[in-house]
Amino acid sequence: MNLLLIAEEELSHRGEVLLMDERARHLLDVLGVTPGRSLRMGVLGGPKGRAEVLFADDESVRLRCTLDAAPPPRPRVDLLLALPRPKVLKRLYAQLAGLGVGRIYLSNAKRVERFYFDSHAVRPEVYRPRLIEGLSQARDTHLPEVQVHRFLRKLVEDVIEAEHPYDKRLIADPAYSRSPIQSLAGLAPDRRVLLALGPEGGWDPYERELLQRYAFTGIGLGSRILRSDTAVIALLSIVHESLRVG
Amino acid sequence: MNLLLIAEEELSHRGEVLLMDERARHLLDVLGVTPGRSLRMGVLGGPKGRAEVLFADDESVRLRCTLDAAPPPRPRVDLLLALPRPKVLKRLYAQLAGLGVGRIYLSNAKRVERFYFDSHAVRPEVYRPRLIEGLSQARDTHLPEVQVHRFLRKLVEDVIEAEHPYDKRLIADPAYSRSPIQSLAGLAPDRRVLLALGPEGGWDPYERELLQRYAFTGIGLGSRILRSDTAVIALLSIVHESLRVG
Repeated sequence: MNLLLIAEEELSHRGEVLLMDERARHLLDVLGVTPGRSLRMGVLGGPKGRAEVLFADDESVRLRCTLDAAPPPRPRVDLLLALPRPKVLKRLYAQLAGLGVGRIYLSNAKRVERFYFDSHAVRPEVYRPRLIEGLSQARDTHLPEVQVHRFLRKLVEDVIEAEHPYDKRLIADPAYSRSPIQSLAGLAPDRRVLLALGPEGGWDPYERELLQRYAFTGIGLGSRILRSDTAVIALLSIVHESLRVG
Repeated sequence: MNLLLIAEEELSHRGEVLLMDERARHLLDVLGVTPGRSLRMGVLGGPKGRAEVLFADDESVRLRCTLDAAPPPRPRVDLLLALPRPKVLKRLYAQLAGLGVGRIYLSNAKRVERFYFDSHAVRPEVYRPRLIEGLSQARDTHLPEVQVHRFLRKLVEDVIEAEHPYDKRLIADPAYSRSPIQSLAGLAPDRRVLLALGPEGGWDPYERELLQRYAFTGIGLGSRILRSDTAVIALLSIVHESLRVG
């Protein structure tokens, strides 16, 4: 745990928080905290700072919070992800939040199995703790928003195109060879990117055409065929790094 | 299975191969092959081509191989990896081979637990099938070589410096901010890179100093602290993509 994360509503009006859940267990059993110990902490969706241990017993820890650091900047990348297999998706949440992502659109696609949508992997009680685990690792407080969409076209037309909060839209597929490094070179530092990634087996030609019609630029990583979870991590890292270099 | 892989010694003098192991099971149960079916295939460390199914029964498949495509180019990146936790390492092998790596040096470091070296995760019978799985996914035939080193200094001085087959040596650590994209810009297409990655918690200052003394250039990915398996995938992908863009 590189950053202890709490929800705003856990904070008392005196700036204290009482933990009795698995965070308390981690502080007590792994870090072995005692009164006086100071820890990095953050508020989900808010600022960061330090927490001083006021009290600790076998099952609870009380902390005084000093939140004097600004919230980290919102990640500049959102993901449009053809719904992965539930097992893969559950493993991905912490890694995606760790790398940094503003919003995750989980979408249907031709090569997505319909029953994936009935899995508990798309439920907040499953993804929220995993996303928080990733934020805690990366010392971020910006909890990614997750949206589930059963129709790619409606997502693109009614949500993305209607709200169009993206300066650059990318579609990743083995069909394209242009590198994200080239595609993003020179993008101004305040600009936001939407990265669309297909299912195992890639986007269907109709889906590629739909996304291109809505100003998605094709990118790829060369001739190797990556496992879909590797591809997500690889592409998200490369996009972030391209944006960081500018 | 995007590429059926065989060892050269499995090939008969008539250019045929008889499979009775889990590859046969995959061909029969997952792909449902019957005589006449043609598949992409490759020889480990050698060329690629096609295999035609000559015979199939409940437990075996006989194939005729036509190896008319050149071996894929050797991956331009080697990894020096502070030995990860066995569980993490076992999961990484297939992903590393999928992304492409010529050689993997697994090394000791101050923050590596000694007992990791006794784990079966560093044994060929554990890593070889996982590496082959990754190659099969990526349609590569170049099996990464794995070396285990209990002394970082000896590895650097007696192996890397003595053989110095690298045009660029990189050390990744949160202590550095220069991007691999910047570090590798303009490297000629035939040049090889060695990427050194520290353990969970990073390299020790002494280790950073040692590696810098031997011409390793520091690189990092910004301020987020990545889980070590995410960091390996992220860095290897970014290095490959930087080399591809040139």
